[in-house]
Amino acid sequence: MTKHILLMDGPDMPGLIYHVTGVLFRHNLNIIRNDEYVSPDGQFFMRTEFEVGSAPAGAEADDLNPQQILNELRETLPEGVKLRLNPKAKKNIVVFVTKEHHCLGELLIRYSFDELDADILAVVSNYNTLQPLVSRFGIPFHYVSHENRSREEHEAAILRTLAIYQPDYLVLAKYMRVLTPDFVGYYNNRIVNIHHSFLPAFIGASPYRQAYERGVKIIGATAHFVNNNLDEGPIIAQNVQEVDHRHTATDMATMGRDVEKIVLSQALKLVFNDRVFIHQNRTIIL
Amino acid sequence: MTKHILLMDGPDMPGLIYHVTGVLFRHNLNIIRNDEYVSPDGQFFMRTEFEVGSAPAGAEADDLNPQQILNELRETLPEGVKLRLNPKAKKNIVVFVTKEHHCLGELLIRYSFDELDADILAVVSNYNTLQPLVSRFGIPFHYVSHENRSREEHEAAILRTLAIYQPDYLVLAKYMRVLTPDFVGYYNNRIVNIHHSFLPAFIGASPYRQAYERGVKIIGATAHFVNNNLDEGPIIAQNVQEVDHRHTATDMATMGRDVEKIVLSQALKLVFNDRVFIHQNRTIIL
Amino acid sequence: MTKHILLMDGPDMPGLIYHVTGVLFRHNLNIIRNDEYVSPDGQFFMRTEFEVGSAPAGAEADDLNPQQILNELRETLPEGVKLRLNPKAKKNIVVFVTKEHHCLGELLIRYSFDELDADILAVVSNYNTLQPLVSRFGIPFHYVSHENRSREEHEAAILRTLAIYQPDYLVLAKYMRVLTPDFVGYYNNRIVNIHHSFLPAFIGASPYRQAYERGVKIIGATAHFVNNNLDEGPIIAQNVQEVDHRHTATDMATMGRDVEKIVLSQALKLVFNDRVFIHQNRTIIL
Amino acid sequence: MTKHILLMDGPDMPGLIYHVTGVLFRHNLNIIRNDEYVSPDGQFFMRTEFEVGSAPAGAEADDLNPQQILNELRETLPEGVKLRLNPKAKKNIVVFVTKEHHCLGELLIRYSFDELDADILAVVSNYNTLQPLVSRFGIPFHYVSHENRSREEHEAAILRTLAIYQPDYLVLAKYMRVLTPDFVGYYNNRIVNIHHSFLPAFIGASPYRQAYERGVKIIGATAHFVNNNLDEGPIIAQNVQEVDHRHTATDMATMGRDVEKIVLSQALKLVFNDRVFIHQNRTIIL
Repeated sequence: MTKHILLMDGPDMPGLIYHVTGVLFRHNLNIIRNDEYVSPDGQFFMRTEFEVGSAPAGAEADDLNPQQILNELRETLPEGVKLRLNPKAKKNIVVFVTKEHHCLGELLIRYSFDELDADILAVVSNYNTLQPLVSRFGIPFHYVSHENRSREEHEAAILRTLAIYQPDYLVLAKYMRVLTPDFVGYYNNRIVNIHHSFLPAFIGASPYRQAYERGVKIIGATAHFVNNNLDEGPIIAQNVQEVDHRHTATDMATMGRDVEKIVLSQALKLVFNDRVFIHQNRTIIL
Repeated sequence: MTKHILLMDGPDMPGLIYHVTGVLFRHNLNIIRNDEYVSPDGQFFMRTEFEVGSAPAGAEADDLNPQQILNELRETLPEGVKLRLNPKAKKNIVVFVTKEHHCLGELLIRYSFDELDADILAVVSNYNTLQPLVSRFGIPFHYVSHENRSREEHEAAILRTLAIYQPDYLVLAKYMRVLTPDFVGYYNNRIVNIHHSFLPAFIGASPYRQAYERGVKIIGATAHFVNNNLDEGPIIAQNVQEVDHRHTATDMATMGRDVEKIVLSQALKLVFNDRVFIHQNRTIIL
Repeated sequence: MTKHILLMDGPDMPGLIYHVTGVLFRHNLNIIRNDEYVSPDGQFFMRTEFEVGSAPAGAEADDLNPQQILNELRETLPEGVKLRLNPKAKKNIVVFVTKEHHCLGELLIRYSFDELDADILAVVSNYNTLQPLVSRFGIPFHYVSHENRSREEHEAAILRTLAIYQPDYLVLAKYMRVLTPDFVGYYNNRIVNIHHSFLPAFIGASPYRQAYERGVKIIGATAHFVNNNLDEGPIIAQNVQEVDHRHTATDMATMGRDVEKIVLSQALKLVFNDRVFIHQNRTIIL
Repeated sequence: MTKHILLMDGPDMPGLIYHVTGVLFRHNLNIIRNDEYVSPDGQFFMRTEFEVGSAPAGAEADDLNPQQILNELRETLPEGVKLRLNPKAKKNIVVFVTKEHHCLGELLIRYSFDELDADILAVVSNYNTLQPLVSRFGIPFHYVSHENRSREEHEAAILRTLAIYQPDYLVLAKYMRVLTPDFVGYYNNRIVNIHHSFLPAFIGASPYRQAYERGVKIIGATAHFVNNNLDEGPIIAQNVQEVDHRHTATDMATMGRDVEKIVLSQALKLVFNDRVFIHQNRTIIL
């Protein structure tokens, strides 16, 4: 049976769940899973999975009329509540890389077995190092060098490439260039980055070198949305790995790669399944 | 403002959330948090936290009339749905121990700073080893030796002690005696045990010895309800600890104690806050 | 500077470290890292990394004469001590799979970027499902079906394939067939398997189904050497992942795959870097 | 049999292990465990556990003459190598607290069952909140208020108290006052603090509030030596705990307390067992 997804996001007030579930009940729609959250500052978030219920004896099962459901919900709910019904199930993405292959390799393998919940339309890189890997999987690779280009020229060239694909999301899979606010503005809340530290520790360059020098006993990785402040966007997922004094910065980088690629994949799964809301620079994951 | 808790457990059917939230809405009750779960075999579980809403201008805020709320819920919900409104906030417990102090010490410290969400009425032990520790905290200690007593006589003596206290829950904080089905039957789903392994690995005696001999690289602990089959009741919480070849069985036992006491405390917090449902020998934690 | 590795394994007795380090010292060899372990039953294990020291002024640096070093070590050490100097740095392996791609994909990506510390000579499978993946990486794929063959005939066919490659190790990367003692005997302590549970919990088939039914709160994966008893060989590495009541057996299998592939890779890194000794069905990792 | 411990720390050079083990061998001393580390900048660290070997037939076992062993080691080793033989097995400590009880409670329970590898001589606090807890365990409690005192006067008063006890180590078990460089200078590398964040994230006050506001998915705690820069001393141990969007800063503080007390205890065990060396603001744990 088809599973439908309703996403809702707005100021909290009494009766919100009651009103929404009433519309679904009157349409013979069966809630399979319902997750809500009210933030301390009074914002309400809900993600509801439902399916068309079995018809009573002698009657016919209604098909879902999404527009009618949305209209009724809008009538019953106050202004200012955002509703999305059945967002696109499989997202279109473009992956950005520089020279490191581990996150890209992970995404390509998952994609080639249809485990990514997304279609990789293309890979963009400021180096051609990873072209051979990408070509193994028959995916377009766009080498857009940043050399002899201003940051703005480089991003303009990338944007021309992206215009071909119209991706839903950009995935920075170890893309080692800082994006301008203008560029980020085009893809607000639609750029996911993997940072190779347990943010907010070790913002910026060479986090494993910083971790080694600080003598930490645990390293980590952070997947987050990119906003205008480097490494300060809403965090989606984090994970960690124990280290000890024997590990050099290079060892940490090697060990960290396994954490990075898994954290990035887990974060993308949440994002592509429409489980992630953003509020006040924090993610709510339902 | 007072927080109220409604617990619900019954066969799933369309409209359950709608009906419950409708009763709350009509009484001007504001849902703070709502968690639901439907099991694959069609059982519905819900835990709702709500408070009395602010009155509209010119009106008076209603006080909660719990019996009326329950009556209305029962009218609107089908037979077979179990409802509990505002279960006792602080549980009464008796703690069972043998000779090891670490879990008991943890519970006593938490209790003495009112962090346990429960009152420790007494400690029962088949040895008097831990009497000095218990006496530091001014709690009754009942030494009920099992020597020269059949299992039934021993349990009868314990039951006489428990009759004084009428506890809501028994906590087996490293109590190294197997309880009979009869005894367990008196406290169905109300006995919590900590087992010193990552169940179902290493059921029974000397799990750290078994873990050492099997050469595992991770050990663990499991808090679970006790039913008639030793170590096979519903699992509430588990956690683990890395080990390596240098660790002897004794080292593992030492390291494991830290895991045991934390896992037991976390499980008790969930149980005493009425977050744990039991279904088909599995726990649902809302 | 070239790094040399000396491995030593034998009955413990006073002076072992002294005698070995003496030989190295007299040859102007500089210990970079030295790890030892003495088991409770008196077996000594040592792994020493060293390099040729800088020559004193006016002298020439000696090149290493491995045979001479070994001869001197054998003279100074008692009988029964096993010595290996500079084991083959990059192992030759054949990977066995059935239908699941995640561990194989992980190994192929690592191999294609020279991160595996091994050469994948070929992939063997009892299905042809994964042939397209393997062919992307230009590696021979041998489809050896078990249909219409006795277990012995099937293994004989596999052994004929292996005879071409003479691998140092076999890696069972989710190979879902039990191997006979005869087959295992040909590759004693040279077969590494990934089992999709936290052994010894859930030995045998469908461990995620078993985990779901037991209601565990943590699942795991185990990389181990294969010996004659299924899932009972020496454990090399384990890791775990938290789950809760919402996760079905299928969800657990999906989440578990990320743990499996990372644990297998970490175990192989240890094995291929000659860090793993085996003693009494337990691994010592230096 | 008595276990002896030798600690060594100095510039690396060829033959160090050989020379040390030679002295032990000639005295019929049997190495039980030996751990070494050479830092990238060429500092050598070694921790050796040994016992007196069994005498050959017809001879008598030598007792250990520590001074002679040390003399011979000093003769054979170059200048600048620091040697310690059999450091004091049980350390004397004074515990500092403010108002939070969880770390102190943990230490008191461990101490009362002789599991701390240290004697708690006294507890010092700038509040009298925890006096009742400490008095349960019969340990002196010194309430040294900071009110109406300059920082220097307050520390002078504390130092007068410490003068009575001459502790080996000070343990800051949630002591919420910053110590002056002068004070710290009196106890160089002998003050252990628990910080309630995963350092270097969230240095300073209210780390759980900071963690909540940043929206991290993992919180942690750090045990470290105190030096002159707040929260920047050598890290001994760290651990973490997953959180999600539902957890308020208060929830995080509650959950974090379990991590804090275990991390502090584990760090103290390492320090009190003389397993921790300090080099370049990093700890080496052998």
